Amino acid sequence: MILKYCFGYPVDTEAVVETIPLSKETIPYFSIEEGEQGRTLSYSLKPKQTVFGLGEQVRGMNKRGWIYESNCTDDPEHTEGKRSLYGAHNFLLMEEEKPFGIFLDCAGFVQFDIGYTDNDVLKIVVPEEDFYFYIIEGESYVDVVKQFRTLIGKSYIPPKWAFGYQQSRWGYQNENDILECVKNYKEHHIPLDAVYLDIDYMEGYKDFTVDNQRFPNLKQLIQDLKEEHIRLVPIIDAGVKIEEGYETYEEGMKHGYFCKKEDGTEFVAGVWPGKVHFPDVLNEEARAWFGNGYGGLIELGIEGFWNDMNEPAMFYSEEGLNRVYEKGRSMEKDNLNDFLELQPLVSGLANQKEDYERFYHTFHGEKIRHDRVHNLYGFYMTRSAKEAMERFAPEKRMLLFSRSSYIGMHRYGGIWTGDNKSWWSHLLLNIKMMPSLNMCGFLYCGADIGGFGDDVTEDLLLRWLAFAVFVPLMRNHSALGTRRQEVYQFRSMNQMREIIKLRYRLIPYLYSEYMKCALQDELYFRPLCFDYPMDERAKEVEDQLLLGDGLMIAPVYEQNKGGRYVYLPEDMLLIRFKTADEYETQVLKKGDHYIFVPLEEVVFFLRKDHVLLLTEARESVEELQEEELDVFAFVSEKAVYQYYEDDGISTKENGTITTVTVTADGEINNTAEGQKRIRQAVLVKEADEES
Amino acid sequence: MILKYCFGYPVDTEAVVETIPLSKETIPYFSIEEGEQGRTLSYSLKPKQTVFGLGEQVRGMNKRGWIYESNCTDDPEHTEGKRSLYGAHNFLLMEEEKPFGIFLDCAGFVQFDIGYTDNDVLKIVVPEEDFYFYIIEGESYVDVVKQFRTLIGKSYIPPKWAFGYQQSRWGYQNENDILECVKNYKEHHIPLDAVYLDIDYMEGYKDFTVDNQRFPNLKQLIQDLKEEHIRLVPIIDAGVKIEEGYETYEEGMKHGYFCKKEDGTEFVAGVWPGKVHFPDVLNEEARAWFGNGYGGLIELGIEGFWNDMNEPAMFYSEEGLNRVYEKGRSMEKDNLNDFLELQPLVSGLANQKEDYERFYHTFHGEKIRHDRVHNLYGFYMTRSAKEAMERFAPEKRMLLFSRSSYIGMHRYGGIWTGDNKSWWSHLLLNIKMMPSLNMCGFLYCGADIGGFGDDVTEDLLLRWLAFAVFVPLMRNHSALGTRRQEVYQFRSMNQMREIIKLRYRLIPYLYSEYMKCALQDELYFRPLCFDYPMDERAKEVEDQLLLGDGLMIAPVYEQNKGGRYVYLPEDMLLIRFKTADEYETQVLKKGDHYIFVPLEEVVFFLRKDHVLLLTEARESVEELQEEELDVFAFVSEKAVYQYYEDDGISTKENGTITTVTVTADGEINNTAEGQKRIRQAVLVKEADEES
Repeated sequence: MILKYCFGYPVDTEAVVETIPLSKETIPYFSIEEGEQGRTLSYSLKPKQTVFGLGEQVRGMNKRGWIYESNCTDDPEHTEGKRSLYGAHNFLLMEEEKPFGIFLDCAGFVQFDIGYTDNDVLKIVVPEEDFYFYIIEGESYVDVVKQFRTLIGKSYIPPKWAFGYQQSRWGYQNENDILECVKNYKEHHIPLDAVYLDIDYMEGYKDFTVDNQRFPNLKQLIQDLKEEHIRLVPIIDAGVKIEEGYETYEEGMKHGYFCKKEDGTEFVAGVWPGKVHFPDVLNEEARAWFGNGYGGLIELGIEGFWNDMNEPAMFYSEEGLNRVYEKGRSMEKDNLNDFLELQPLVSGLANQKEDYERFYHTFHGEKIRHDRVHNLYGFYMTRSAKEAMERFAPEKRMLLFSRSSYIGMHRYGGIWTGDNKSWWSHLLLNIKMMPSLNMCGFLYCGADIGGFGDDVTEDLLLRWLAFAVFVPLMRNHSALGTRRQEVYQFRSMNQMREIIKLRYRLIPYLYSEYMKCALQDELYFRPLCFDYPMDERAKEVEDQLLLGDGLMIAPVYEQNKGGRYVYLPEDMLLIRFKTADEYETQVLKKGDHYIFVPLEEVVFFLRKDHVLLLTEARESVEELQEEELDVFAFVSEKAVYQYYEDDGISTKENGTITTVTVTADGEINNTAEGQKRIRQAVLVKEADEES
Repeated sequence: MILKYCFGYPVDTEAVVETIPLSKETIPYFSIEEGEQGRTLSYSLKPKQTVFGLGEQVRGMNKRGWIYESNCTDDPEHTEGKRSLYGAHNFLLMEEEKPFGIFLDCAGFVQFDIGYTDNDVLKIVVPEEDFYFYIIEGESYVDVVKQFRTLIGKSYIPPKWAFGYQQSRWGYQNENDILECVKNYKEHHIPLDAVYLDIDYMEGYKDFTVDNQRFPNLKQLIQDLKEEHIRLVPIIDAGVKIEEGYETYEEGMKHGYFCKKEDGTEFVAGVWPGKVHFPDVLNEEARAWFGNGYGGLIELGIEGFWNDMNEPAMFYSEEGLNRVYEKGRSMEKDNLNDFLELQPLVSGLANQKEDYERFYHTFHGEKIRHDRVHNLYGFYMTRSAKEAMERFAPEKRMLLFSRSSYIGMHRYGGIWTGDNKSWWSHLLLNIKMMPSLNMCGFLYCGADIGGFGDDVTEDLLLRWLAFAVFVPLMRNHSALGTRRQEVYQFRSMNQMREIIKLRYRLIPYLYSEYMKCALQDELYFRPLCFDYPMDERAKEVEDQLLLGDGLMIAPVYEQNKGGRYVYLPEDMLLIRFKTADEYETQVLKKGDHYIFVPLEEVVFFLRKDHVLLLTEARESVEELQEEELDVFAFVSEKAVYQYYEDDGISTKENGTITTVTVTADGEINNTAEGQKRIRQAVLVKEADEES
C-alpha cells in the first residue's frame, strides 16, 4: 500500500514511474510543521527501533544516531563526521511491527536527523518545501522494498561481461600503459573483462575527444582488446571545456545548451580542463545533444562508460576565482589581516553553496535555479548517456555507471561509490553500504577495490577482493600518486588470481541472482534481519550480508586478523575455497562461531535447502561455459534453485529459467532437458558434519 | 639483557637513564646498510609474526602491514593513511620464541616499514644516520618491556586528583563559562576534579598571561574552585608572541633564548597568537627561563598544565607567508596559471619540512639544526614545565601532560592523544593505542573522551565514558564549533553520572594499579597475549585489554550495537554495573561469548584468583574514603591483592601496601591491622554460575 502526498509545487524528478493518485487520508506516522527552516516532518522513534535506508551514505546500515543530508557532494573524505556523499537517496525503511518505508521526492537539499539531536525523534527538514512524500506500508522489510522498487521502476541491467573483473587506474597515460596492464593480466592468466580510461585519454580533458598522441588509433585498440574479450571503458566528466574551436563547446554555445546565470550568460566553473560550462542535462534537447557525444565513442566500438564529476563538482567558480585575484593583488606585504582574508577565499573555493545558486536549468520547459534540482544532475547526465546508447546501439546492453545519483537513476545505470580510500574501515563501509543501495534500486554497484586514495596494503587488497567476489561491480581502481594496485604488482598475485577465478566460477549463480533481483524488484544484498525478522541478534548484524537466494557472506575486514566472529541465524553450510578449485565444507549450527579465514581463502555460507551453482573459471566472462555445472547443496528435505540464464548482451529479454532440484537422497534434477550437465556435486545433508 | 650500539655521532636525547657500555658483539637479528636514504636496518619477518610498539600511532596494536614514521606532526586527521601523529616513540616489540625489543634513539625522522613494501621485511630507515640502537632480549613480552622501561626511567606520577573526571572545552571564554560548567556538575552531583582552560584564557594567546577582562581575578577563582575540590588546568603553547612590551618576549629576546636562523636572527612562525618565536627549550638555560613562566601560574595556585602545539606546530613561517604575498600581489587577473601557483603556496603553508630546516637549537652546548632534533621539542618543553614545578613547588605532585612527545618525556609528564574526532573508529583507536603507549613508558594518558573534532552523538559519549572509566587520564574535551559535550548537555545525564561515579568507586583499585606499574616499570594496559602468550586466539585480540593485576575490559565501540563478542582466555567473572551501585556477576567459561551491554552499563571481567577493591563514590577524588572497601573476588583457591595507597599528592614516596587475601572459604584478611574494613563482599567461587 502506497500513500502519496504533495507539498507545495514540486518539480517532477521522474524518480517514480507509477502513477498514484494523491492520498486523501491524513499522513500517518508523521507530524508536519512549517517554519523558518522550511517544512519539517517529525516521527517518534521507539527505543532501539532500526532505521534503514539512505543508500550511499556514511556510517552503518542502521542509520540511527546521526544527521544525514541529501546534498550530492564531491568530498573524498568519507569519514564518520560527514553528512553527504555523492548521491541523494531519500528512502528510509522503518522498523515497526509492520514495517514501512518513506520516499521524499525532492531534488534539493534535505536533512534527516535520525535520533541525533533527540534520541527519540526522526526529523526531516526540507528547506525547499516543495516535494512529494510517499509512505509505503507492507508486511515485511522485503515487501516494503519490493513495493518501493516497483514504484521507482526496474533497475539497470548491465551486459554480462560487466560481471567480470575490471582494472582501472587514474594514471594510465596512453595506449602503452593500457597494453602493459592487459599484457600482465594475460601473461599471468588472471581473468580480466575491462580496463578503464581515466581522464588522461582525452585531449586536455575535453569530453568526447581522444588525445591522438597518447592513443593514435583508439578504434583499433578497442577492437584488438575486444578480441581478447576485454572492453575499454572511458570516463566522461560533466563540465565541457571553454575552448574556441572545440566542437562540443561550440555546439553547446550555438544552441544555448549550457547552464546560464540570471543575466543569460553561461555559468563558468573550474574542473579538470580548467574553465568549463555545464551542459544542461535536465533540458531534454540539451540532454539528447550531450548524449551524441557518447554516440561518437560508441561508434568507435566503446561499450561502456563511467560518468564522473557530476554532482556537479567545481574546483572553483569564476566569481570565486575573481575574489582571489582581487584579494591577492591588493595584499600589502606583511599585512597579516590581508593574508587571513585571502586564506579562506582560496581554501573555500570548491563546491560552494553560493555557486550552486548562481545558475539555472530549463527543466520540463521551465527555468529553475540549480540548487533546487542540484541532486538530479548526475541522474540526468547518466540518463543522457543511456538514452544515447539506446539510439546508437539499441540492441546491445552497455555498461554505465555514475558517481553522483538520485533515485530514478537506477533505471539508467549503476554507481560506484566514489573516491574511497585504501582503509580497512572503507572495506567495512563498502560492505555496509551495499544493502542500503539495493533498497534504493541501485543493484549494479561497487566500491573501488583496494581503495582509491592512500596506499593499499597487500593484505587489504586480498581481503577486499575476497569480498568483491560477491559484488556486481568488481573493479580495482586507484588514484594517481598512490601505490600501484593491479594484482600483478603483488607477491601474492597467485592467491589474488585464485580469488578472481573463484568470482568467475560463481558468475552463473551471481548473474542469475542479479537478473532475478533486477527483473523482480528484489534485493541482491540484504541485511540478515530481512530474512530473519524475529531474531533479535540478527537485527544488529551489519558485517554479514545475505546474497540473493541462498548465500550469506561474512568478510574479514580487519588488518592482522586471521578470522572473525560469525552469527548464524540458522544452521548453514560453511564453504571454504582455498583456491578457486580446492574447497572444504562444514555444517555449522545456528549461533555464534569464530571462523578462521587465511588471507588467501574465500569463506561463505550456504543456507539450508539451498543450492549453489558454479562453472569452471575462464579468463573472461565471454569464455565461460554454463552447460556443465558444479552443484553445492545443503539439504534437509529438498533444495530447489531457479537458475536464470540469457545471452548476457541483448536488450531484448531472452532469459530462461532452469529449475534445479536436489533431494535429501542426493538426486539432482534439472528442467533444462539434458542441456545442463552436473560435473561435480557437493551435497551435504543437515546431519552431516563434513562433506 | 640489553645490547647497545652506536651509529655515527648521535646527540644525547636523554631518553635513556641507565649507563650501558656499547656492545662489542655483532648486532643480532638485523642487517645494516648505508645508502642514499641514510642508514637502513633490515630484519626478516616470519609469517604472522606480531610486531608491537610505536606508542602513539594509527592502526592496530600489531603494527605489521604499514609504513610508520617518527615525525611529530600536528595533523588532526588521524586516519589509516597517515604515518605520523604527534609523538615519536621508536620502540618495537618483536614476537619470537623469546621476544625482543628495539629502541632506536634518534631525535630526527625515522621510518619503519613493517612488512608494508615487502610482507616479510621490517625495514627501518634513518636518514639522520646518527643514533643509538638498543636491543632488549627477554623471556617474555612483559620481561622485555620491563627491562626497556627500566632503561628509560620511571614514569611520571600525577597527583591522585588527576584520576578524577575532568572537563574541557575549546570555547570556555571567561570566568562565567567556567563557573557555569562547574555549577552544572555540582548541581547535578556529577563528580568532577578539574576544568581546563584552553587558549582563550590568555591575553591574545600570549603564554603566561591572563586576560583580565575575561578572568578579572584568576587567583580567587582558582582558590574558590579548589574549595570545591576542583582544579583549573591552563594550556601552554610552544610559540611566544612577538610583541613589544610583552615580558616573555622581551626577556627571551634579551637573553637570546629563542630559536635562531642560520643568520642569527630569530626564526618567525605563525601560530595562534600570530607571529611567534620558539623558545629554545633544548637549551638548559632557556628551558629554565621558560619554566619560570609556569612558575608564575603555580604561584597563583595552579597545580596542573597541558602543553600544546609543541611539535612545534606552525600555521606558516614568515618565509612561506612572504611567498604568498609576493605571488598574490603579482597575480594577473584571469591568469589561471597565477592562481594555480598561488593555491599550493596557501594550502601548503603549515608544518613544512623546509621550515623545520630553517632554525637552530643550542643543545648540550652545541648548535644543531631543528630537523635533527625535531622530535624532542615537546619532550623538552614538558621537561621545562616539570623542572619548574620542582623548583616552585618541590613538595607537591602536579598534573602535566603534553601533545607532542618522545620517549624520555614519560618521566616528566603524560600525554593526551591530540585532536581526535567524535568517531566510533577513534574510540577503537583509543583502545588500541593504550598498551602501545604504556610500553613506551607513557602511563598517564588518554584521548579526548567523546572526541575533539566533529559532533559527538549521545551514544558515542556513553560508550566512550564506559571505556574511559578505566583510563588514567579521564578528560572530556571538544573543539570550538562542535556540539557541546559536557555530560549535563545530554538527556542521559543520569546514566553518564552513574558511569562517572563508577570511575570514582574504582579509584582505589585503578590508582593502586597505576602506582605499582609506575614504581615497578610495568604496564597498566596490556594486550591479552602478554599474559596468555601460548594462546593463539588471544594473540589477535586488539579490542580487549588487560588492566593491571586482575581486570580485563572489552568496551563496545560500534554504533547501534547492544553487545559484542568477547574472547576469554580463561574462566573469568563478568561484572556488570547497571548503575554505580547496582551490579550483577556471572562466571563465564574460557572461550567465545556474545555479551549484551546496554548503553548505560559498564561491563568488565575479573580474572580467576584475583581481587577488585572499590570504595563509595564521591564527587571528587579528595572526598573519597578508603578505610571501608567493597571487595569483589573470583576464587578457585586463594586470591591475593597488593593494595597500594599513599597520600596522593606528596612528591616524597609515602606508599603503603595492604595485602588483601580471599580464600575459597570466603575468608577475607587484610594486613592493614584493623584499618581496612570490608563493607560489602562479592565472592564468587569458580564453580558458581551466578553470585
